[in-house]
Amino acid sequence: MYSFKNDYSEGAHPLLLQALIDNNLENNTGYGLDKHSLLAVEHIQKHLGSTFSKIYFLAGGTQTNLLVSSAFLRPHQAIVSAYTGHINTHEAGAIETTGHKVLAINSPNGKLTPKLIQNTLDEHSDEHMVQPKLVYISNATEIGTIYNKEELSALHHFCKLNNLLLYMDGARIGNALCSADNDLTLECIAKLVDAFYIGGTKNGALNGEALVICNENLCTDFRYIMKQRGALTAKGFVIGSQFETLFKNNLYFELSNHANDMAMVLQEGIKQLKYDFLTISSTNQIFPIFPYSLINILENDFEFYIWQKIDEYSAAIRLVTSWATKPETVHMFLDSIKNITLND
Amino acid sequence: MYSFKNDYSEGAHPLLLQALIDNNLENNTGYGLDKHSLLAVEHIQKHLGSTFSKIYFLAGGTQTNLLVSSAFLRPHQAIVSAYTGHINTHEAGAIETTGHKVLAINSPNGKLTPKLIQNTLDEHSDEHMVQPKLVYISNATEIGTIYNKEELSALHHFCKLNNLLLYMDGARIGNALCSADNDLTLECIAKLVDAFYIGGTKNGALNGEALVICNENLCTDFRYIMKQRGALTAKGFVIGSQFETLFKNNLYFELSNHANDMAMVLQEGIKQLKYDFLTISSTNQIFPIFPYSLINILENDFEFYIWQKIDEYSAAIRLVTSWATKPETVHMFLDSIKNITLND
Amino acid sequence: MYSFKNDYSEGAHPLLLQALIDNNLENNTGYGLDKHSLLAVEHIQKHLGSTFSKIYFLAGGTQTNLLVSSAFLRPHQAIVSAYTGHINTHEAGAIETTGHKVLAINSPNGKLTPKLIQNTLDEHSDEHMVQPKLVYISNATEIGTIYNKEELSALHHFCKLNNLLLYMDGARIGNALCSADNDLTLECIAKLVDAFYIGGTKNGALNGEALVICNENLCTDFRYIMKQRGALTAKGFVIGSQFETLFKNNLYFELSNHANDMAMVLQEGIKQLKYDFLTISSTNQIFPIFPYSLINILENDFEFYIWQKIDEYSAAIRLVTSWATKPETVHMFLDSIKNITLND
Amino acid sequence: MYSFKNDYSEGAHPLLLQALIDNNLENNTGYGLDKHSLLAVEHIQKHLGSTFSKIYFLAGGTQTNLLVSSAFLRPHQAIVSAYTGHINTHEAGAIETTGHKVLAINSPNGKLTPKLIQNTLDEHSDEHMVQPKLVYISNATEIGTIYNKEELSALHHFCKLNNLLLYMDGARIGNALCSADNDLTLECIAKLVDAFYIGGTKNGALNGEALVICNENLCTDFRYIMKQRGALTAKGFVIGSQFETLFKNNLYFELSNHANDMAMVLQEGIKQLKYDFLTISSTNQIFPIFPYSLINILENDFEFYIWQKIDEYSAAIRLVTSWATKPETVHMFLDSIKNITLND
Repeated sequence: MYSFKNDYSEGAHPLLLQALIDNNLENNTGYGLDKHSLLAVEHIQKHLGSTFSKIYFLAGGTQTNLLVSSAFLRPHQAIVSAYTGHINTHEAGAIETTGHKVLAINSPNGKLTPKLIQNTLDEHSDEHMVQPKLVYISNATEIGTIYNKEELSALHHFCKLNNLLLYMDGARIGNALCSADNDLTLECIAKLVDAFYIGGTKNGALNGEALVICNENLCTDFRYIMKQRGALTAKGFVIGSQFETLFKNNLYFELSNHANDMAMVLQEGIKQLKYDFLTISSTNQIFPIFPYSLINILENDFEFYIWQKIDEYSAAIRLVTSWATKPETVHMFLDSIKNITLND
Repeated sequence: MYSFKNDYSEGAHPLLLQALIDNNLENNTGYGLDKHSLLAVEHIQKHLGSTFSKIYFLAGGTQTNLLVSSAFLRPHQAIVSAYTGHINTHEAGAIETTGHKVLAINSPNGKLTPKLIQNTLDEHSDEHMVQPKLVYISNATEIGTIYNKEELSALHHFCKLNNLLLYMDGARIGNALCSADNDLTLECIAKLVDAFYIGGTKNGALNGEALVICNENLCTDFRYIMKQRGALTAKGFVIGSQFETLFKNNLYFELSNHANDMAMVLQEGIKQLKYDFLTISSTNQIFPIFPYSLINILENDFEFYIWQKIDEYSAAIRLVTSWATKPETVHMFLDSIKNITLND
Repeated sequence: MYSFKNDYSEGAHPLLLQALIDNNLENNTGYGLDKHSLLAVEHIQKHLGSTFSKIYFLAGGTQTNLLVSSAFLRPHQAIVSAYTGHINTHEAGAIETTGHKVLAINSPNGKLTPKLIQNTLDEHSDEHMVQPKLVYISNATEIGTIYNKEELSALHHFCKLNNLLLYMDGARIGNALCSADNDLTLECIAKLVDAFYIGGTKNGALNGEALVICNENLCTDFRYIMKQRGALTAKGFVIGSQFETLFKNNLYFELSNHANDMAMVLQEGIKQLKYDFLTISSTNQIFPIFPYSLINILENDFEFYIWQKIDEYSAAIRLVTSWATKPETVHMFLDSIKNITLND
Repeated sequence: MYSFKNDYSEGAHPLLLQALIDNNLENNTGYGLDKHSLLAVEHIQKHLGSTFSKIYFLAGGTQTNLLVSSAFLRPHQAIVSAYTGHINTHEAGAIETTGHKVLAINSPNGKLTPKLIQNTLDEHSDEHMVQPKLVYISNATEIGTIYNKEELSALHHFCKLNNLLLYMDGARIGNALCSADNDLTLECIAKLVDAFYIGGTKNGALNGEALVICNENLCTDFRYIMKQRGALTAKGFVIGSQFETLFKNNLYFELSNHANDMAMVLQEGIKQLKYDFLTISSTNQIFPIFPYSLINILENDFEFYIWQKIDEYSAAIRLVTSWATKPETVHMFLDSIKNITLND
């Protein structure tokens, strides 16, 4: 059985495990104040240029998002998100548990634009309604699309103009930055958003996300909020060491590149077999539309999610590749489609 | 520099790391539904006998405590804790962030008794006050003491009688159960409390606590609460695999035993040097009282916390040992005291 | 200047004020345990027949809704509401502040149906998403429509089948029950929902809503939740006395009837002048569509809200009548339209 | 049966009721934006001199306190209070429900001092603990004592120095300011605290408290927080009108003066009968210590709370007087004691 279900089915890249072994018996300071965390911060900050930034290592995406909500907002302030945004649909109400409303906007490609946000602002004009304050975007989005520089700059300017904060969920930021269509860098992003995070869990770490806060005002007492939400990890050096390894050289991007490459081979191959797609992706998630007859047979050998019913006869499935996806598996999948289609 | 600061300065026991390496490229189901987590549950349940139990793997102690608070209580219900309880003093208000009050009781040895709790019940009689509902105890306590079977049974009966829930914070439950004074087992505990957790972070794991819920009513939808608080770990198999290794054989208790032994050597050695103690411990935290002159010199070679000022001339320090503490380090510490005392 | 802005511009019906004066120097027990509150409960319960019910007097609608959310739900549970529902759009995130998500459903007439709710249930299938638990409906709705017996029974059965709670916001329940299209009674409603409230503020009281909980399980410790949210009024007898007066005889329904009558005269009159409506109402809110040229002139003498832009030239306005609206004012408004239209 | 149970057993002073009747059929703007609320603000501001202030009318004390907690604090910040503080003991965890911890300090007279607060600051030094941020004091306190100018100035300076906010619960501020021992004015208080409230419910209003925020930074979006907590009253003019009447002339202080006078007659009379007191009060709550034999007989004709058991034979009771307490009732109570004592 081969899995294309997600990019967090395997453990960690071997270099990260090796570093954990090498550091294992050191006496490290707790709670992220250790030397590995500090080195990881240093390595990441090199990518951010001279932009102001504070970096906090956290254990997962939902945790990171709820900390941002808790730390950045006053009680009456709301988060604007695409309807497909992870915080809106797949975090069991984590944001609401911090007391804040998510104002969800329908967007066909999973992305927000100033125009879409303006509608929401227009609808929320006084104290009888929540106050939109933070714009949440994902890059790559939950459906594989990415923001380019022009789009992100437009959001940046719109947010400044409207006194909004801009926050990027970067669970798959490596995949976005390594996309063939990308023209952003970590440094660009740091200049254009108030905060974003660099996802580790979906890109080769056992666990861990690096939250980068670029707006100095938002850093005050952030570690208190971490502690209070159970996110100040006693053995913080475990996450620190992993990010140290990921960013010491270019490993982080190599892993994303590999995942994207595997997805592109899949997408290209399926396209050549004349199948359609729900959306064309340039990252590590692709969404081919297959007849159920094909899906049913593929499910004998491969694991994946059925993403969306198209009609009585077909559905879009989601295939996700990771740093650990083997080229053989990808080719086996393409061969399977060919064989099944031939035999039809 | 040798550290007696805490029991979470090192990484994981080598056998746990080895298992992570062995499992690394498996395609595991996410969110704790993998085979390693299931095996870990099985191994732990053997220790619990036929008692009803559901086991949930979480990332840390504060996270576990706040989940319990969030899942078990209605909004107006409060937690009764010793003043020294971790939730009262060292979790940055995590419980209050879930909306609940901690009713703190002064207790010289860090333990609660029916009599102490009764006072709190008496003071909280109607809807103008919070309703005491969950009794929080730590075993071992934050100052190294432990509960014996008689004490825990008394609390159990008192809680049943008063419609209270009983919850044990087991960050150092291994140290409690391996103490020379202990007469409890995991099975006993499971019968006497509504929930407790088995701490991994302080006993040889990279991270991870196993929350055992023994009261079936409290299990309903617990995974929703986990997800919502950012505690449903994508790569749940990382914690699962570690508990599998800790409980497959008796490794968990071996590690606690070692930590306790090291502490007892220290305590015995210091006692023979005629120093007094803040409290006599039978677990892996000890609290000798030293003159500042001695403390200052010891700080050149060893790290530890000054726990409590006694008078102008002396203070109690806290020495914590772990699964990784080496006998040499312990003897080096004792020798240092002797040498310094001689040279005085 | 005459106001059709809302039904809470005036104070209280004179009989309510008189009762306050009559009772003023009594020594009443605090916090709603006084004799007037008890009598008010008795009077209301006569309308509920033998249905189980507990009645709690609260100060306003948003307060009532947030108490329901806080008391009835566990943290991961969500409220299903029409998009136009008061809790979704006009309570500044009160529900989210209690930690719960509002799952909003688009509905052209402001009402929910089993089919609409089923879609939401289908989308929320596991612990990565919130759990839909309470169905919130308003009767009359925020746009003047009402539920009939068949519709409410269908919701009742659907909720039972799906283990959902059904709650009716009755800020304007009097207007609903006095509508010409209505076939429900308070007793019917009490049998079909888990809880509902009888609005006083919008029907002749200085303040006050009577929350009726018909599901015994939901009553436990409700007064604690009231106290904790600042809703246990010291001088509870002020609200109690008002509901005593409203329900001693049939004053409550007389007031709603009057408000409805005034609205129907307005609606009928405007219809005869050949204007269209956003929605046809049978309660005390009506929504005629007028050209801006007409609206602008009307605004010189009357206050009302512009509810929704229709096109460049016209908009729907909202006209609300109350227990205190005078027939003269209604006729003056109709005359104004005629005069302006003639002069056009 | 005559009641000394509390100062909120009666309705409103007749002049307040008369004003409600006079204004009853006006078409007032909702939500506290009406002319009566504006006039009330104007009248109160005259008492505050040139000090910056924004005034918000709220419905009760617990509601006011939880709004302050919600609006002024970030999630990790805590409130410092005397153990006897209303927020600590008699609000069913309202503060904790907003997510904040109350750090309670034992104080024999119910008052806080810089020294007492300093201890709490010393214990809360890093992100593992909550951050003390707001100092909550009551004036008069829950046990009848008051702050003088020197004490309040000392707190003011201490708070400024330590970056703390100072907030005064003024449920009985009228009684404090009319005490024979008082040297403060509303203007003084406004200069020395960040916010305080002027209690109406306990001083002659049907309901209502006037929250005065003197620190401009704390006003931002306060009305959103009110709405979100169910505290933005639709018929805000009801509270506005009452405060207009209370502060148009000196009615507010006349009522407090009367209540204090009645209490002082009681205290003086009891003192002459050679009974002791738990604490000597100069406001409208007094705490005589009586033998149970006396208490039992008094309870036949009078209602009051037994406040604290002193020993097997005696207890302190609490007698509260109000704007409506009649001199006859006070003398009847004193006569009763005399008669019972004689007959003993």
